[in-house]
Amino acid sequence: MNGKLYVIGLGPGSDKQITPQALDAIAASTHFYGYKPYVSRLKLRADQVAVASDNREELARAKDALDRAATGTTVAIVSGGDPGVFAMAAAVCEAIEEGVDQWRDVDLEIIPGVTAMLAVAARMGAPLGHDFCAVNLSDNLKPWDVIETRLVAAASAGFVIALYNPISKSRQWQLGRAFDAVSAVLPPETPVIFGRAAGRNDEAMGVQLLCDAKAEDADMATCVIIGSAATRIVERGDKPALVYSPRSVRSHS
Amino acid sequence: MNGKLYVIGLGPGSDKQITPQALDAIAASTHFYGYKPYVSRLKLRADQVAVASDNREELARAKDALDRAATGTTVAIVSGGDPGVFAMAAAVCEAIEEGVDQWRDVDLEIIPGVTAMLAVAARMGAPLGHDFCAVNLSDNLKPWDVIETRLVAAASAGFVIALYNPISKSRQWQLGRAFDAVSAVLPPETPVIFGRAAGRNDEAMGVQLLCDAKAEDADMATCVIIGSAATRIVERGDKPALVYSPRSVRSHS
Repeated sequence: MNGKLYVIGLGPGSDKQITPQALDAIAASTHFYGYKPYVSRLKLRADQVAVASDNREELARAKDALDRAATGTTVAIVSGGDPGVFAMAAAVCEAIEEGVDQWRDVDLEIIPGVTAMLAVAARMGAPLGHDFCAVNLSDNLKPWDVIETRLVAAASAGFVIALYNPISKSRQWQLGRAFDAVSAVLPPETPVIFGRAAGRNDEAMGVQLLCDAKAEDADMATCVIIGSAATRIVERGDKPALVYSPRSVRSHS
Repeated sequence: MNGKLYVIGLGPGSDKQITPQALDAIAASTHFYGYKPYVSRLKLRADQVAVASDNREELARAKDALDRAATGTTVAIVSGGDPGVFAMAAAVCEAIEEGVDQWRDVDLEIIPGVTAMLAVAARMGAPLGHDFCAVNLSDNLKPWDVIETRLVAAASAGFVIALYNPISKSRQWQLGRAFDAVSAVLPPETPVIFGRAAGRNDEAMGVQLLCDAKAEDADMATCVIIGSAATRIVERGDKPALVYSPRSVRSHS
């Protein structure tokens, strides 16, 4: 009765961007845990049970799912994008480390997915075409000064920076502060991409210059990509401009 | 006669990890450009033409594909993993920026995919569960000192580091030097993942400690993930150990 726990990445939102591996895992599972907007994307059969959660924290959700799996059930936790990028896979590992022995015996299988920064980058050109990093801008689980130090270190070293969770109802000032921090080390004309809901019906993509970047143009569904000093904008007349980071480091970088 | 150019991510290697969007784009294309091992993964119809290339450089391949598309053809360039991560999307943008006006009129559509670090991370737990970066370890297009500076900056700031292209026949010493560089700022017991050919039949996954990490255990198909000081290994008896990076920054970090 070891049970099975899938941790599944649903991709950025379009059914066309979910892998067959993820669909197979969904078909094999009977109980589904996850943040409500992700669980509601599933087309479940009558014999499958959704346990959507709004307010419960990720660790509690991971523990609930492990408890259920340990009874011999096949359980799925679903995340948007990739479950290993600021999502449920780390919470599950943390729960297993801290939890009862039976949870270590659960057959754990993590199914990767297309994470938001890749989907946004693909819509805009190739902003992640050179060395890049991903930073969770939420300061719920880490102090703000750590975030700011990382942003400045990454920008100074020439990394493109993808920001996840840039803003929320309770975190309004962080993105503006992030722009201020990297402005100290990046040129004012550095491209900043606001990639909202890539692949979904309400997708909205745009690029601004760092000196003019408006934090209020981001929302919870936005992945913000701050270019490096080498990132370029290529105008194409009536087609959307391309934003890309060259593969070569030139002498001025 | 503007033509269409898809730049398609095939995912890490398993047919189960390629998106429906990528399959649709393949079905719609008539000419296929790419590095031979990727083109050979395609199951083409009799009316579809593969233009695999071994030795030609990426920029030349991008220009050939744009030339073909500009005649009014629907052309695909295929990459393993995601085309925007150290792959063909940036080369195509670069070719468009430098090239003839007709190339800007080509309808360009980039199809994201599951990139190697996500597939490797999923097999091992959640090593990318906190802030992380991706570094191309090839010094073909950038000086080695830039790479070393970036590695030390990223490790010092607490980023997990995913290394792409860690080693090749002509680049034998770089991975060992990378381990040496980060050893100056990371604890000796930092976990280092060697993730080879994730999702393929010849997959091989392992974890070593930084102080013992053997660069010769990597090959061209390996994605190496160097943990941060906070990355942990969770033993699970007869099941493979989990490697994860906690979501929280604790006071010692």
